[in-house]
Amino acid sequence: MPQAELLKLLEGIADEAIGMDSSVVPLKYPGLFLISTTDYFYPSVDDPYVQGKIGAANVLSDLYAMGVVDCDNVLMILAESTDMSKEERHTVTSLMIKGFHDLVQEAGSRVTGGQTVMNPWPIIGGTAMSTCKQEDFIMPEHAVEGDVLVLTKPLGTQVAVNVHQWISIEAKWSRVSDFMTKDDAERAYQVAMDSMARLNRNGARLMHKYGAHAATDVTGFGILGHSRNLARNQKAAINFEIHSLPIIKHMKEVNEKVNFKLMEGFSAETSGGLLVCLPANKVEAFCKEIEEIDKHPAWIVGRVVKSEADRTQNTSKIVDNPTIISV
Amino acid sequence: MPQAELLKLLEGIADEAIGMDSSVVPLKYPGLFLISTTDYFYPSVDDPYVQGKIGAANVLSDLYAMGVVDCDNVLMILAESTDMSKEERHTVTSLMIKGFHDLVQEAGSRVTGGQTVMNPWPIIGGTAMSTCKQEDFIMPEHAVEGDVLVLTKPLGTQVAVNVHQWISIEAKWSRVSDFMTKDDAERAYQVAMDSMARLNRNGARLMHKYGAHAATDVTGFGILGHSRNLARNQKAAINFEIHSLPIIKHMKEVNEKVNFKLMEGFSAETSGGLLVCLPANKVEAFCKEIEEIDKHPAWIVGRVVKSEADRTQNTSKIVDNPTIISV
Repeated sequence: MPQAELLKLLEGIADEAIGMDSSVVPLKYPGLFLISTTDYFYPSVDDPYVQGKIGAANVLSDLYAMGVVDCDNVLMILAESTDMSKEERHTVTSLMIKGFHDLVQEAGSRVTGGQTVMNPWPIIGGTAMSTCKQEDFIMPEHAVEGDVLVLTKPLGTQVAVNVHQWISIEAKWSRVSDFMTKDDAERAYQVAMDSMARLNRNGARLMHKYGAHAATDVTGFGILGHSRNLARNQKAAINFEIHSLPIIKHMKEVNEKVNFKLMEGFSAETSGGLLVCLPANKVEAFCKEIEEIDKHPAWIVGRVVKSEADRTQNTSKIVDNPTIISV
Repeated sequence: MPQAELLKLLEGIADEAIGMDSSVVPLKYPGLFLISTTDYFYPSVDDPYVQGKIGAANVLSDLYAMGVVDCDNVLMILAESTDMSKEERHTVTSLMIKGFHDLVQEAGSRVTGGQTVMNPWPIIGGTAMSTCKQEDFIMPEHAVEGDVLVLTKPLGTQVAVNVHQWISIEAKWSRVSDFMTKDDAERAYQVAMDSMARLNRNGARLMHKYGAHAATDVTGFGILGHSRNLARNQKAAINFEIHSLPIIKHMKEVNEKVNFKLMEGFSAETSGGLLVCLPANKVEAFCKEIEEIDKHPAWIVGRVVKSEADRTQNTSKIVDNPTIISV
């Protein structure tokens, strides 16, 4: 749902939570907090097992963005498509459940329940929760001037998923065939799937190690939508400046033919990377260590600058002619 | 989704949870448990505010069935219908959110987050969670021979919702017009709505006060489906015998014309009552007190009998010619 419409609907109900990826509730047991998040969406990749993993990576990511490393349990949210035959449905759903289950296990947690319904469109997602002490999570509100922004996964997953669907549709493929091959599209799709199905858990661990000041994950509202939410949530009067965009190879060119708002920063990502706000002197070590552990790079994408306005005016922008990093 | 299909899909993943309405996870903090549940469905009543309340009552009920009285927080699960105009959608969704929010507040809890998507069919529901000590919840597994089963809301909500839709469809209405008036249908619908939108929280409180041995809530699988799940979850070799069915007035007769499997015990209920297994000497006081507090009666509907078979064969049945209580 469009962000503006959603905010209007939730006016006066959940507005304190804007900029936070998870709910944080202090418990009646002194020193303990219950952190929880729910997220679900419609499958976009054609491998149901990978789709299940993406569904799990995506909901867990909301905990990781708060620096929560250990998830107590996950409830699975699932809808089977009414458009499939019973056999298709059984096969597809079994694989989605297996993928979801396997990735939750990889995250050191477990699926302990959930709800499954029938729906015209299939749905996959869940609720993840963790009871924590104060030191186990990082409130996304301590960014200061001079901090550096790091992104841990590339942008362009939605574009890659779409261009992959065009391979077999000549009218659509012809729009992009002058600058890329079908193998390029397959490769971009594979990079996107690997990225979406990968846990952001190491990012959460390193946020503690390197003293991150704030973080969010980049999903449906794009890097600019989420970084604006994060900027607004800061206690200091600051702005974010995004100066670099790591983008899956060829997706910038695809976006020039069919506008996904990728360059404006509003292209939706699924199970995107963590956008982490780090002290400048810790950034290099963070990036080096996460690449060692995850076997995938993270990129410096921006910085935190002082704002002369009131902190309620905090925002984020992409600079003119940002550096494009082809991934 | 049909129960058998669902169980097959979940084989080897969540089978330990059958018969439990919520997930129970022991935490790393000694003596603490995280109890959580997720539930969502498609709206069935034409008042979106009441529908929101029903969505909240329904998800909270899974906690109450475990004797959990206090919910820490709720995440809301919502889908707006793609079939509505933007204006309709905004009005309907705002009212659903308000109803959901108001009932969660009435339950002494709060909505701290959630997820909203667009979908062909609207969806309402949520995840409810509570961190508890051992004495705050009742594992549904201690039924013994001689126990008595009490039901705290009447059956027939799905039938009442359907017959209400027939009022304006002459071909359908004519099937039932010889034994009921349109006012009767309106009254049955009102009874069903009030019932579905009512919290089971007092039932959870009284389960502790009167030493309940086990409980579940009656929802999509009907009274027999849920009581069978509950019977299977017991540690003793027992069976349940349902001897009485409290049914919303006229719905038994409607069910004779159009079979909802109400008399077989499989008619789906939405946000149904608690089915509580109580020591025989506590039943009367439980029923008396819940009627005083809730201003609605509860009914003795069955008993727990010894089984000669292995406990894995535990089951529940409705006796021949059960007593029908017209509500």
